[in-house]
This record gives sequence, C-alpha cells and structure tokens, in this order.
Amino acid sequence: MKRIQLLVPILLFCCAIGIAQEAEKKTVTSIYNEALGDRTAYENLRQLCKTTKGRITGSTKADEAVEFTYRLMAAMHLDSVYKQPVMVPRWERGKKESAFIRSARLGKKGLAVAALGMSVGTGSGGLKAGVVEIGSLSDLEKLGMEQIRGKIVFFNRPMDPAMVNTFASYGGAADQRTLGAIEAAKFGASGVMVRSLTTALDDFPHTGVLRYTEGVPKIPAVAVSTMGADLLSQWLQDDPELSLFIRTECHDHGEVGSANVIGEIKGSLYPDQIITVGGHLDAWDLGEGAHDDGAGCMQSIEVLRLFKELGIRPKRTIRAVMFMDEEVAQRGGAEYARQAELNGEKHYFALESDRGGLLPLAIGISAPAERLVKMMELKRYFEPYGIRITEGGGGVDIGPLKKFGTPLSSLIPDSQRYFDYHHSANDTFDKVNNRELQLGSAAIAALVYLVDLYDL
Amino acid sequence: MKRIQLLVPILLFCCAIGIAQEAEKKTVTSIYNEALGDRTAYENLRQLCKTTKGRITGSTKADEAVEFTYRLMAAMHLDSVYKQPVMVPRWERGKKESAFIRSARLGKKGLAVAALGMSVGTGSGGLKAGVVEIGSLSDLEKLGMEQIRGKIVFFNRPMDPAMVNTFASYGGAADQRTLGAIEAAKFGASGVMVRSLTTALDDFPHTGVLRYTEGVPKIPAVAVSTMGADLLSQWLQDDPELSLFIRTECHDHGEVGSANVIGEIKGSLYPDQIITVGGHLDAWDLGEGAHDDGAGCMQSIEVLRLFKELGIRPKRTIRAVMFMDEEVAQRGGAEYARQAELNGEKHYFALESDRGGLLPLAIGISAPAERLVKMMELKRYFEPYGIRITEGGGGVDIGPLKKFGTPLSSLIPDSQRYFDYHHSANDTFDKVNNRELQLGSAAIAALVYLVDLYDL
Repeated sequence: MKRIQLLVPILLFCCAIGIAQEAEKKTVTSIYNEALGDRTAYENLRQLCKTTKGRITGSTKADEAVEFTYRLMAAMHLDSVYKQPVMVPRWERGKKESAFIRSARLGKKGLAVAALGMSVGTGSGGLKAGVVEIGSLSDLEKLGMEQIRGKIVFFNRPMDPAMVNTFASYGGAADQRTLGAIEAAKFGASGVMVRSLTTALDDFPHTGVLRYTEGVPKIPAVAVSTMGADLLSQWLQDDPELSLFIRTECHDHGEVGSANVIGEIKGSLYPDQIITVGGHLDAWDLGEGAHDDGAGCMQSIEVLRLFKELGIRPKRTIRAVMFMDEEVAQRGGAEYARQAELNGEKHYFALESDRGGLLPLAIGISAPAERLVKMMELKRYFEPYGIRITEGGGGVDIGPLKKFGTPLSSLIPDSQRYFDYHHSANDTFDKVNNRELQLGSAAIAALVYLVDLYDL
Repeated sequence: MKRIQLLVPILLFCCAIGIAQEAEKKTVTSIYNEALGDRTAYENLRQLCKTTKGRITGSTKADEAVEFTYRLMAAMHLDSVYKQPVMVPRWERGKKESAFIRSARLGKKGLAVAALGMSVGTGSGGLKAGVVEIGSLSDLEKLGMEQIRGKIVFFNRPMDPAMVNTFASYGGAADQRTLGAIEAAKFGASGVMVRSLTTALDDFPHTGVLRYTEGVPKIPAVAVSTMGADLLSQWLQDDPELSLFIRTECHDHGEVGSANVIGEIKGSLYPDQIITVGGHLDAWDLGEGAHDDGAGCMQSIEVLRLFKELGIRPKRTIRAVMFMDEEVAQRGGAEYARQAELNGEKHYFALESDRGGLLPLAIGISAPAERLVKMMELKRYFEPYGIRITEGGGGVDIGPLKKFGTPLSSLIPDSQRYFDYHHSANDTFDKVNNRELQLGSAAIAALVYLVDLYDL
C-alpha cells in the first residue's frame, strides 16, 4: 500500500502538467535535427585541439585559445563578443619528466610519469630515494615518521572499478593526488608518486592539480601510469630495497594576465537577465583537451549558433562563456561572478558542460525547490533523446554564481570512457564523436530555450 | 483524466510485483562488480582482434577464430565445449580495389572504395564508364534505361543524421547496398558505387553484403567512403561527363566447411532446457571485427565465466554460441536451429549481442505476452545500471529459434558510434572500452540469471 500512497501525488502531479505544447516540441525537434545534421562545432573543436594543444592556464597556447574562440564568436554576428580579463597562475612543466627504479635484483627500469600540476620540481639533479607504497592517506599515520622520512611515498589506491559512475570513483581516490604531497611531507617524505586517476590500464600518466599548504614543505609529486603503478608495486614486492629516481623540472612563474571569452545574444524581453552556458578553455598541457573541456566550450558556442540558425529569439540574454583556469586556480569562474556582482547583473540560470563530449544521459539541476519542480517537468521534452532531468547540478566555473541564488545545472554524459582521457596525452580530438558531442549541444540548447520560454 | 485512467493499472501492477528479493539483488550486484573489476573478456577480445583480423566467413582467419574460441572455452572447465559443423560461402576480396575518375576538366582523382561482399569482380582490366548519381532505387525508374545503360550508378543517399537511433537510419539507407546492384542492372547499368553506410564523414569505405537475383546480370558493386562520395558528387557537378574507373578482383569460391563454436554449463535442474547467449564470430575482412562482433562473442563467453567465477549454478543449461557466417549467408544461425530441431532440444530463452560493445542502454525482448510481462518486471534490477527493458528483441543468428516459440532478446547499446566502425577497417580493438563491454556482459549475465531463477 505504501507504493499506492507514493504514486497518488505523482499521478496528480502528472495531470497538472498537461500536455506539452506542440510548437515547443517542434522547436526542440528542430534544435536536435539541426545539431545532428551539422559539423560546425565538431570542426571547431578539431581546430581548437590541433592548434592550441597543451593550453594550460597562463600559457601562450591558452592565449591562442582565447584568440581562437574570440574570433570564432566574432564571426557569428552575435550581439556582443568580448574578453573578460583575469589574472591566472602560470606553471610550467619544463623538460619531460624522467623516472626509473634501480635495484640490485631487478636492474634499472623506467616508469611513465608526469609532474602533478603546481608541483615543485626536483631540479635537474633529480630526487633519489627508497619507496613506501600505501593505499590511503591514513596509512601515513600507521607507518609513522620513522618509516616515511626521506622516502618517496607511492600512493597506489586504484579508482574503484565497481562504481558505475566513474566520477564517484574518481572522488573516492582523488585525495591521494590533491592532498598526498601535503600529508606525506608532514611525515618527512621527500617526494610523492601517485597512481594515475583513471579506470584504464595503460601507460598514460594522468596529471591534475595538487595542493600545498603554509608551514608544510613543498615536495615534488608525480603521477605514474596505471601500468607503471602495477609494475612498481610488483617490483617493490620483489625488492623492497629498490630506489626510485624522479626528475621533474617544473616551475611556478607566478601570475599572468589571461581572459574569459564571452559571446552574447541579447534578450528580446529581459536583456538584463542572463543565462550562462559554459565550459573551460584551459586544459592540461599533456593533451589536446578535447573532452576536458574543449567539448564543453564548443557545445556552449554551438548553443548560440543553434539559436541564430533556427531564428530563436530568447527573452533573456544568452551567454556562452569560455572560462579560463578551471584546472589550476579556478580564477575565471571567480572573476566572472565578481564582475557580475560589480555590474549588478541578474543571473537567471547557468549550465556548465565539463564532463566530456560523450553521450548525454542526464541534465542535473540545483535550484530552489519551487523552480526545481518546474524544471523537472521538462523531462517529457528530453525522453525521446534518452536524457533524464535529475536533481543536483553545477560546476567549478559557475559555482560562484550560487550566491546570487542562480539555479546551477550540468550536462551529465555517460562517464565510462571519460577517465581514460582525463588530464592525459590521451585526451585527443579523435576520441570525440560528432553525434555524441551534438546530442549534448542540442540538450543544452533545448533546456535553455525551454527555461527561458516558460520563465522557469 | 486520460492520464489518470492510464496510470491506475500501472499503479496496481507496480504493487503486484512486490519488492525484489535481497539475495537476488546481491547476486546481480556481484555479477556487475566481478565484470567491472575484471579484464579477461577485454584481453580475449584483444587477442581475437589482433590474431584473427579479417576473419570473413570461409577464410583461414575464420578457421583460426574457431580454434581460438574453442581453446578459450576448453580452458574454462565448462561442462561441454564443441564445434558444430556448418557449410558457409567463401568469397574473397582479392587484390586491393582501385577507383578513380578521369575528367578533361578535373584530371585524375582517386576514391577510397571497397567491393561489397559477394560482389562479382570487374577483373584485372577494370570497368570504365560514365556515372549517374541518384538518391534512391526509385530514381532508376525516373531516369530510365536510356540514361542508365552502360553507366555506373552512384547511389548517394546518406544515412539520415537526425535519427537518434542510428540503426533506424541505417535501415533507411541500406537498400542501396543490398539491392542496388540488382535494380541498377535491370536498367542496364555496368556497375554500382554506393555511399558508405556510416554517420561518420571520413575516408573509410564500409562494405557489407549485397544480393543478386536469378535472371538479372551480376554487376560489380563497391562502397565508397563518405568523403569520397561527397567529392564525387561535387566532381559530377563540375563535370557530368567524367568517367569512373573501378577495378575489383573479388571471387566467389563456393562453399567450404566451417563451424559454430559452443560452450555449455549444464543445468542443475532442467539440463535439457537451453538458454543461448551468442554473438557472431565471422567479421568483414577489412577490419578486426572488434565491435562487429568480437564484442558480442567475448561477452557471451564472459557470461559463462561470470557464472563459474561467482559459483552461480543455473537450473537450465547455459550455452555461449559463437555463430559463424552472420555477415554473408547466415548459415550458422540456420544450422544451430536445424540441429536443435533434429535433436529435439528445448530452447527456453535466447539473447544475441550484435550491436557493438558499447554502453548498454536497454535489453529488448520479444516473447509471448504472458512471459514478456514477467520479464519486464525485471527492470528494477537493471535501473541502477541505466538499463531499460523494452519490447522487441532478437538477432540474425537466434532468429531461426523463433519457430520454437523461444523468447528472443538483444542487448541494445548506445548506437551513436557504432556505424563509425561497422564493416570497415576502422572496426578495431582500440575502439572498445572495457567498462562498456563489461557493462554489457554483466547485463546479459544478470538477465540470464534472473530469467532462469524465476522461471520467466
């Protein structure tokens, strides 16, 4: 009987909604048809990937990506295209990293590594030390300073493969990368090697930002490929006395000027109310940043193209925002919100696409209850495309808009493949499928169209 | 009010089902956990792809694939592993095809082509003729014999990109490939060139079987890459008088012996009732047959591994079947059903996986109404994995079991990427993701476990 009690309100709720208007349905269909039949976003992504590979925040390539997207939008006859200046960190990897073990029993054997973002370098002389393998930060306490001092701590806890949502699995393992250097240094470690955060078993090291904190020595930290991590673990069983050599020549160069890039279609009725769709323009230096997050950027621009192409005149101003510096210090998102506050902007709705240009399965939304309920009603428009509307959305770049009460949303694609590419040299254009990318573009455009149309 | 009327029976139905047993849920979870944490099926697929590339039915490579899968299952301590002999066609592509245009205005320009399966060859001298571009078979009638006689008919209707389900889009364009040679020959054409059946825009020709019919001349037919098709269409606009040269040296060698490969776990309670899970072992000669259909084969074997590994004792006999010759004459599936009839086998349930090793989104089932309703109740077990149970299932290889009243089912993965690979050199192992493959294996194993357990 519980089930009946539960279903009655749902049933009444369904009746209350009524049947979606045919005209709106047709527009949603035309958005999807146009997106699936077009290759503009895909070809733009190809260009971005091939000409600005390695566009880490603060780099020349990031500057080129700013120019590329600025020109792209400038050629689209939008109502406004501009750069929003922002200061960002500039960290450089320097010479390609080197890592190998030396062992009386096993000889010399190499490992595929990459310095973690913002890590200090070992300098050209490198770092040589014994290795302690552990599975979690709490193991440090168990081993104690005696066993850790002077050693390289090897964090080897894999992402849990059993979790269907790999973002949850990533969340369960990422502390090793973000906090490992701080925690290991507290116990006197000389360096850190972290198993790459990927569900793949291959030889790509996956980088990502680490943190340091005041009062704790900054020690060098690298990611090792998952195949390398498995090997090192085996070697340590064969010879616990082996020594590990790591050389990284990365440097922190302080701050430099950069920019968010913004394109707008002005609202016809409420031009001062802003709907933001965005992705981040910076990408880790190892790859092309195709899925992370060239895809989200090109989808955001595509939303504007779809509106223009189909002659959809939004009531509110639609902005495509290429956020700078998501990967390192999240300065672009912070500056966007700061400028919004300074200028007294009204942010009606925001969506971020930063989970790869893969098959979209859902749109997640965080919003005040009343608005959320209305937005959930939109599901009927998305059912033909296999997309659910779920509670809980946002993103690193749009997160700072939360203080304005803006509903925050995210495109949620399938996550199975994402961490194969994430933060590695494997994140290249050929891994993106035009149809998957465009199903995402269409979903975002349709959502924005409906939220604006129905004043949700 | 209509909505309420509709919901009441659904509501009562939901109540009737009751809550799924915890023990069964745990077994389903353990199936998924084991599948996602294991790489056996993936590594077996790698071996199959790398050692038996080009395993077209009747070929030496197909024989090697028979041996490979036989040995694979023989090493698994199953209750029975055997080959089921079957006669299959043997068609050989011969020397790599060549195609180019010659035009007074445009000069000589090459095109990426591949003979369609079972096509006659042009012979080493090749075929040279003018070109007529058309969009559909019915255009032949419109043009008439005058304009077609002696020409090469160029079928250039693309798969409709707006269809979200690319299999539907494929179905809407495939007549050009399967029937184009027959229909064009009726109007006196000397050859046929067909736009590749893919949603990708690239330079891979995609082959696939064509038909000939008694009393109509057999004319040579090739697939041209989609980029090639777009170019040729443009060239024809620039110079309608251009001539096209095609050379294919393919041959039909009649019939040879081959085999289906079958592995079994005997049922503990009803050993004479058979549940079949299968894929097809043959693949087009151009690629590795990774998605089509090495993936389905390895998933089928994985179902047996999962049952063994987790100690699940099925009541009924579970068979993994590697069907031979799905691509050309479908002899393996026909022989399997013929032997079933000869031996008086009871086929309780059958599932085919032949839509690629991509993210599974649904399981489709065709069954008598009463059994179908019960099977649909299983959806609760699959919801955590994003899999729906939908009406309508089957497959080319298990299709002949329909006459026994056996419920037929198919694994339905996402279709966006599938036709990028289908029947082309692009169907390679690196396009398969272990997690996607294994989510499919787990879904099949869980379905078989539940259908058997609940006597559905």
